[in-house]
Amino acid sequence: MPDPIVLKTIVEMSAWSAKALRKDKSIGFVPTMGALHAGHKSLIDRARKENDLIVVSIFVNPTQFGPGEDLDKYPRTFEADEKLCTQAGADALFFPDRKEMYHEASRTYVEVGGLQDVLCGMSRPGHFRGVATVVTKLFNIVRPTRAYFGRKDAQQLRILQTMVRDLNQPVEVVPCEIVREPDGLALSSRNAYLSPRERKQALGLSKTLEHCKQAVAKGERDAMKLIGAMAEMLEEEPDAEIDYVAIVNAATLEDVTTIAGECLAALAVRIGKTRLIDNVRLNA
Amino acid sequence: MPDPIVLKTIVEMSAWSAKALRKDKSIGFVPTMGALHAGHKSLIDRARKENDLIVVSIFVNPTQFGPGEDLDKYPRTFEADEKLCTQAGADALFFPDRKEMYHEASRTYVEVGGLQDVLCGMSRPGHFRGVATVVTKLFNIVRPTRAYFGRKDAQQLRILQTMVRDLNQPVEVVPCEIVREPDGLALSSRNAYLSPRERKQALGLSKTLEHCKQAVAKGERDAMKLIGAMAEMLEEEPDAEIDYVAIVNAATLEDVTTIAGECLAALAVRIGKTRLIDNVRLNA
Repeated sequence: MPDPIVLKTIVEMSAWSAKALRKDKSIGFVPTMGALHAGHKSLIDRARKENDLIVVSIFVNPTQFGPGEDLDKYPRTFEADEKLCTQAGADALFFPDRKEMYHEASRTYVEVGGLQDVLCGMSRPGHFRGVATVVTKLFNIVRPTRAYFGRKDAQQLRILQTMVRDLNQPVEVVPCEIVREPDGLALSSRNAYLSPRERKQALGLSKTLEHCKQAVAKGERDAMKLIGAMAEMLEEEPDAEIDYVAIVNAATLEDVTTIAGECLAALAVRIGKTRLIDNVRLNA
Repeated sequence: MPDPIVLKTIVEMSAWSAKALRKDKSIGFVPTMGALHAGHKSLIDRARKENDLIVVSIFVNPTQFGPGEDLDKYPRTFEADEKLCTQAGADALFFPDRKEMYHEASRTYVEVGGLQDVLCGMSRPGHFRGVATVVTKLFNIVRPTRAYFGRKDAQQLRILQTMVRDLNQPVEVVPCEIVREPDGLALSSRNAYLSPRERKQALGLSKTLEHCKQAVAKGERDAMKLIGAMAEMLEEEPDAEIDYVAIVNAATLEDVTTIAGECLAALAVRIGKTRLIDNVRLNA
């Protein structure tokens, strides 16, 4: 595989896309914050199958980090990322810096009302506004035919689907399944923060969700009972601190009392200093 | 001139644009709320000169009207509008209805912080959020090369220029000069609301601004003095009620105390029940 072309400016990236679109090529787009792992690779693999050309962006977006969050220590591993993109067959790697992406007087935000204030939005105010804004910017620069997002960030996915619908953005959002370690831990760039002791406890998230899914398969429909059981399981891990345990309607992200239609069991748990999220779809 | 093709759905409009873009045609776009007048025609004329194809949209956008504003009585004159578009040489007329433009669960907004809260934003909360959102939607549907906006809506123009920059929207915003009646009144679809008596008093806006411009040309630099003189002139009209009289920095829309660089003298005045706006650029 040839190395992907690395484009660091908006002008270069836009020109690359414009040329591709003039030739009637479809563009598959995988926006990332770098620190790429097998989860990202699965997005690129999927995009590779469905499009003529693949763009991966790497940009640790400051506007989606709150004060005291891990913006500065977020892992930055460009050389390894580039290698993974080469192996996965990406054609272009968009790698702008902060100044390139945000004008010093930048003041425009995309807000997806309601959906952005629940679940992770409760403890991360402004986070999804930052995500919706940067993804809109990236869509306008890259002009992809399809964009690929993992279901691990279920709320992000739902917000972006809603944004694309509401703003008529000319792109298809493609949801992709969560990639897990053999023992069940959902892949995340933040797993790199975990000590061996924490890594073991982090398994609690996927185990708890699997337990919930099985309870629903066996007929349990009471959301409060399911949530209570999940919280209890998580609290068995000594370094786990629950941010939220929720069961919501998959479309509206509103809490449900009874499992019906497509629901989502979603968790955010701090293991030591590392905040992890995971979720599973429940169908009843 | 052949009649422009009238497209009522997003799918049709997007397909029309996609076809044009595949042929490498440039698209000039004039978004309007209909009730077209010579001001709109000047935008279409300008677009005609600079692009291969012209799209005019007509959509009275509900999200930019506040409670108690004139959404329901806003003039709707489709047949005359279509005729004007034909004469001006538009190729396509995008004429969606409300249901086509807004999903019933629509909840996404584009917010241009700061700029949207001053001047007209003070008495029309939510107005510019509605404008920025619908223009973003229209840009995504029509995918224009260039979009044409009149300087009469100076704050709208500045907000949209900022939005396009901040969100990297792939379109060039082209500001166009205000078109006036021979006696100076700025053209507006809302002029249709004026009685003959009010029409005479409405002249106060342009006269006042012209007076301000001349005072600056003669050397006056004190914004408060200029504003005071403008307010006094406007108050001579018996049915005039001032919403605001302001002199602002043309880029930031912030009040200035001294005229320096490019400034804007801007007015909003109610003549009877009709709210009119006008402005003039001041260069010192």
